[in-house]
Amino acid sequence: MEDLGDNTHMTKQTMRFMSDNTATACPEMLAALAAANHGLEVAYGDDPWTERLDAALGAFFGTPLRAFAVATGTAANALSLATLAPPYGAVFAHHEAHIACDECGAPAFYTGGAQLMLLEGEHAKLTAEALASALESHPVSVHTVQPAAVSVSQASELGAAYRPDELAQLCKVAHAHGLKVHMDGARFANAVTFLECHPGDVTWRAGIDVLSLGATKNGALAAEAVVFFDTSLVRDFELRRKRAGHLLSKSRFVAAQLLAYLENDLWRRNATRANGFARRIGAAAGPRLIAPVEANEVFVQLGIEGKRVLRAAGFEFYDWGAERAGMARLVAAWDQNEAHVEALCAALERLPEH
Amino acid sequence: MEDLGDNTHMTKQTMRFMSDNTATACPEMLAALAAANHGLEVAYGDDPWTERLDAALGAFFGTPLRAFAVATGTAANALSLATLAPPYGAVFAHHEAHIACDECGAPAFYTGGAQLMLLEGEHAKLTAEALASALESHPVSVHTVQPAAVSVSQASELGAAYRPDELAQLCKVAHAHGLKVHMDGARFANAVTFLECHPGDVTWRAGIDVLSLGATKNGALAAEAVVFFDTSLVRDFELRRKRAGHLLSKSRFVAAQLLAYLENDLWRRNATRANGFARRIGAAAGPRLIAPVEANEVFVQLGIEGKRVLRAAGFEFYDWGAERAGMARLVAAWDQNEAHVEALCAALERLPEH
Amino acid sequence: MEDLGDNTHMTKQTMRFMSDNTATACPEMLAALAAANHGLEVAYGDDPWTERLDAALGAFFGTPLRAFAVATGTAANALSLATLAPPYGAVFAHHEAHIACDECGAPAFYTGGAQLMLLEGEHAKLTAEALASALESHPVSVHTVQPAAVSVSQASELGAAYRPDELAQLCKVAHAHGLKVHMDGARFANAVTFLECHPGDVTWRAGIDVLSLGATKNGALAAEAVVFFDTSLVRDFELRRKRAGHLLSKSRFVAAQLLAYLENDLWRRNATRANGFARRIGAAAGPRLIAPVEANEVFVQLGIEGKRVLRAAGFEFYDWGAERAGMARLVAAWDQNEAHVEALCAALERLPEH
Amino acid sequence: MEDLGDNTHMTKQTMRFMSDNTATACPEMLAALAAANHGLEVAYGDDPWTERLDAALGAFFGTPLRAFAVATGTAANALSLATLAPPYGAVFAHHEAHIACDECGAPAFYTGGAQLMLLEGEHAKLTAEALASALESHPVSVHTVQPAAVSVSQASELGAAYRPDELAQLCKVAHAHGLKVHMDGARFANAVTFLECHPGDVTWRAGIDVLSLGATKNGALAAEAVVFFDTSLVRDFELRRKRAGHLLSKSRFVAAQLLAYLENDLWRRNATRANGFARRIGAAAGPRLIAPVEANEVFVQLGIEGKRVLRAAGFEFYDWGAERAGMARLVAAWDQNEAHVEALCAALERLPEH
Repeated sequence: MEDLGDNTHMTKQTMRFMSDNTATACPEMLAALAAANHGLEVAYGDDPWTERLDAALGAFFGTPLRAFAVATGTAANALSLATLAPPYGAVFAHHEAHIACDECGAPAFYTGGAQLMLLEGEHAKLTAEALASALESHPVSVHTVQPAAVSVSQASELGAAYRPDELAQLCKVAHAHGLKVHMDGARFANAVTFLECHPGDVTWRAGIDVLSLGATKNGALAAEAVVFFDTSLVRDFELRRKRAGHLLSKSRFVAAQLLAYLENDLWRRNATRANGFARRIGAAAGPRLIAPVEANEVFVQLGIEGKRVLRAAGFEFYDWGAERAGMARLVAAWDQNEAHVEALCAALERLPEH
Repeated sequence: MEDLGDNTHMTKQTMRFMSDNTATACPEMLAALAAANHGLEVAYGDDPWTERLDAALGAFFGTPLRAFAVATGTAANALSLATLAPPYGAVFAHHEAHIACDECGAPAFYTGGAQLMLLEGEHAKLTAEALASALESHPVSVHTVQPAAVSVSQASELGAAYRPDELAQLCKVAHAHGLKVHMDGARFANAVTFLECHPGDVTWRAGIDVLSLGATKNGALAAEAVVFFDTSLVRDFELRRKRAGHLLSKSRFVAAQLLAYLENDLWRRNATRANGFARRIGAAAGPRLIAPVEANEVFVQLGIEGKRVLRAAGFEFYDWGAERAGMARLVAAWDQNEAHVEALCAALERLPEH
Repeated sequence: MEDLGDNTHMTKQTMRFMSDNTATACPEMLAALAAANHGLEVAYGDDPWTERLDAALGAFFGTPLRAFAVATGTAANALSLATLAPPYGAVFAHHEAHIACDECGAPAFYTGGAQLMLLEGEHAKLTAEALASALESHPVSVHTVQPAAVSVSQASELGAAYRPDELAQLCKVAHAHGLKVHMDGARFANAVTFLECHPGDVTWRAGIDVLSLGATKNGALAAEAVVFFDTSLVRDFELRRKRAGHLLSKSRFVAAQLLAYLENDLWRRNATRANGFARRIGAAAGPRLIAPVEANEVFVQLGIEGKRVLRAAGFEFYDWGAERAGMARLVAAWDQNEAHVEALCAALERLPEH
Repeated sequence: MEDLGDNTHMTKQTMRFMSDNTATACPEMLAALAAANHGLEVAYGDDPWTERLDAALGAFFGTPLRAFAVATGTAANALSLATLAPPYGAVFAHHEAHIACDECGAPAFYTGGAQLMLLEGEHAKLTAEALASALESHPVSVHTVQPAAVSVSQASELGAAYRPDELAQLCKVAHAHGLKVHMDGARFANAVTFLECHPGDVTWRAGIDVLSLGATKNGALAAEAVVFFDTSLVRDFELRRKRAGHLLSKSRFVAAQLLAYLENDLWRRNATRANGFARRIGAAAGPRLIAPVEANEVFVQLGIEGKRVLRAAGFEFYDWGAERAGMARLVAAWDQNEAHVEALCAALERLPEH
């Protein structure tokens, strides 16, 4: 990371804390991609890199599984849900979930119209109780959408991590009602790194059926894996993926990224770095925090004036909720400039109390 | 290109002529991608690379336009058609078109159920006459799907290139009936290189409304552009693309590939090379050709025995149609091993007459 | 209506207050249908009865319009919304709306996946304030569904009637944000009869763009009209209706019902009768009412024990919400047995206070 | 049937042979409907009439089955296919089939985009050979739609009836390839009456999985039954029907029609009558016939001049194919005016030879 030196100069430049999507690809993953770039290889996933994905992810999670590469998280989530919910299905999720708010209706497009049933929950996490209550009050009738799936985000949309037992309880309720459970793992590595648990503890051991495992936000160029712990669903998935234009012809390049990500422990290294930045920002934010910092995102109450001051100093970030509500999201990318992080911490500490 | 030297050895190795999708990414495009890999950049297409796409493609085509990057040709085609045809629309295409045979129903998925109306035509090309006849006999009624769009492939599914006047006549018929015209340009560079025409001559000047401009088959890692000459449709497109999970977060990496492809004339260099290989193979195939060689594909009648002989010699390729029909498709990639091409030519010439 | 006489006997029989869907067809509408049953008539809506619909409804509402018959309310609602909202659209509605709870996801099916944005509001009515607030906090971005339509129910799902000015304010907010407004008028006649207003006052004069005008609950065999005050949308509607199998071949029979309903003032007579029954039941329920009685439905807090007592006495009705919540819906049909109504009133008055 | 008396006068009036959809409802079915019109009945199919449908149809077909009423043939067909084919499915049918030409794309809408694979066949009938050939040449790959169902029309779109053994062979091929078989029985009664076979012989005994049993064209007001011989699919069907708005609230009225149709042998009486008219018209048409008359439709080559002459004489009918091709379809309804039939026969015989 470059040394930005002169603080006076730094405040005039842009310091981005908008999203981990603004990050670069990490050199090791780009190198893996380049290393795959020789010779004519069979297209559409019948190449040696893609063929190693199941085993590599199986080793990562400690269980047999089937995995499929796609290029975006929205594709991973919506394709997963389409294998779990019929067109007349109901998918339960937190009302702040990415699938509900940030995918322009992709789940409805891919499922053919399944309805999201949006629940409340602290720190954007679903609870087993809220799910049980929703399922028990859902009418049993042909007149309403049929409960089919639950989707949880790990880490949550407010940067909180589900503990293994929280997930186990949720999945137990879901399965008892005949629902499958999907996990949106756009920041899965960040959550697992924070929890210091085994990846299996917050997925198949807890009862997760399908996982969207993100890598793009954590150092990939463009690479996500859909991981089926319930492998009965994969043929349907494969056809839906192709039909959606999400089966890449030169699949080796996505697979090569994912293999490097998993086999070289890049997932942990990058997430550890991003989480560490977020923890420092969170500490600087102190009482302004509106959610615990358990991944690489920091949610803060800055007030309108606080946001103005930070932006004037060159910091870029998104409002969280309506602009006038005064809340903001600060995201640390894996390749965040450390001096920018220090500058942000200092700026946060300098803000007058609110 | 490596020198394979000993022919005895070569026949034991695999020589792939399956698809231009088996190719590598060309070094210049990979370098452009790597060059874009520094600093935090705004995601989802608001980066400087993506912002230059309209101008770069506008210069290439010689007209103002709007362009959008996606990662696959199926996405480019199906999203394009979804902006052109309502769910109750009819899309006219050749019965061998990629959208009809090779996309697992993507056009119906994206349009919400538009019906393909499949026409005949020599060398997998539509004719203005066939289109006019189909449109004139299509009932005017609420009981049938409503003609909305035509889709042509340049080069065609049998490797033939539409001439500018052929396209102009087709588009004239289409527009006179209120239809929009889409071009599947998965091998657009190959066709334009063969025709030695300006890219505008076989697109907007002929009346094409939307083009799926492929680069993946011709040297990109994964990069296609949807080019709107009729820019009234772009907002709908943007929302459909996001909703389909085809808006890449780190869009700069796709845009960087496309910029290098266009601005460094890689499109022409790669296509010229692939076309040249195909022309040599076509010459060797002689009377076995079942379509003119006007791009980088060679369609031949080999007979069952001919295919067996070539495969035993290490050549990989796809049957064209049913295996027993004896036809085969031989595709030359931009990075095809020249010695393999020579070996294939020699093998074709050695085949007994059929 | 028959005289049930002996009360002792009556308590042993079934007295249904489940839904106005349990009602018979009124004799006048059945007679109109029979009167249309002679001679071969052009099918699919080109018959003289259907051709009179626009004029008859235009006279009823006092404005030029286009109207289309369908057989069910769900079809009327979902087809209407499909003309108003694109697949990536957002449709704002009350969280208890029929389209959200009782149509098995029909709006998503018909629109191709539009998302319902569910709002709160007293007595299941939307307010202009709640709508304005929701629209103002809706992100302007390609990442989220695009506000396209509002749907209100007249009478509401809790039996309350929107006043003309409430609707005018709602429509003003909607139109200012570029949204169209749909009204689910399954019990439109009941609301208008209660309000003693002109049908135009709570539709086009207030800004309603499309109305699902129900007749089935109010005396038809099976007949609903979709009424377009904004006639720009009708061609799209006609094609969607056919495509959905909701264009009846022998359309004259649906049209004949609707003509009789409107031209013979059956809508008012039947609604007046049903409303009157509900008003009497509401008066008997007294403090148990949980919503004002402004149509033909009565929502009451009976307690679990109260419901048990009534059911033991032969009354049939639906729980409202979870069984344990103690709430019930009592619906008066146009042909409700008057003695049953009296018996229900008496039973309600006899219930111990809760 | 009324006596039209003076022939001179008759030629000036309209004599419709357009469609059996122009017919009236037969008095017995209307009476059955009226007989069901008393008392409050549970809605949405939980009434005693609907509950008898399975048994009545089971007796008719001689096998246990599940049956569901809907109001239109398009709904019956498209809903059936949606239970048989996934969105990425292929449905094989004759290129002149009603589902391909006359339902505005309903099968694609209901299935979520399944693709029709249109085959040739004499008299608009599929053959086992053509189906086997299409299935054997269909690629086995994720890149193409997946064969899922076959749909046949009994009688065919050209008025021909499949023999039991023809159907058995077709179903055998379909089942051997894992496909389900749907029958569009809009004119099922006409075909069975012609064949003088048991209804089971051309359905479940031959291997049909789901039947759209039409009654509307043969004397009902609006009543079709979807009959599942393969009952594993019914829950999916019920939810799709509700979601499509095809579950009628006052279901008793549709069920009552169907019960009368089956239990009083109206299906046979009406079909016998219509078929008889068609046979007479066919005999008069002689060498002009372009398909055998095996139901109630007559397809003839009249020439442009022949059509002009008939229309000038007051006969109404549809062109078959392009107007200039000179072909016409003459349909006899169950309630066709006998004098009109005689007049048509006479007019056909008077036409100069072509």
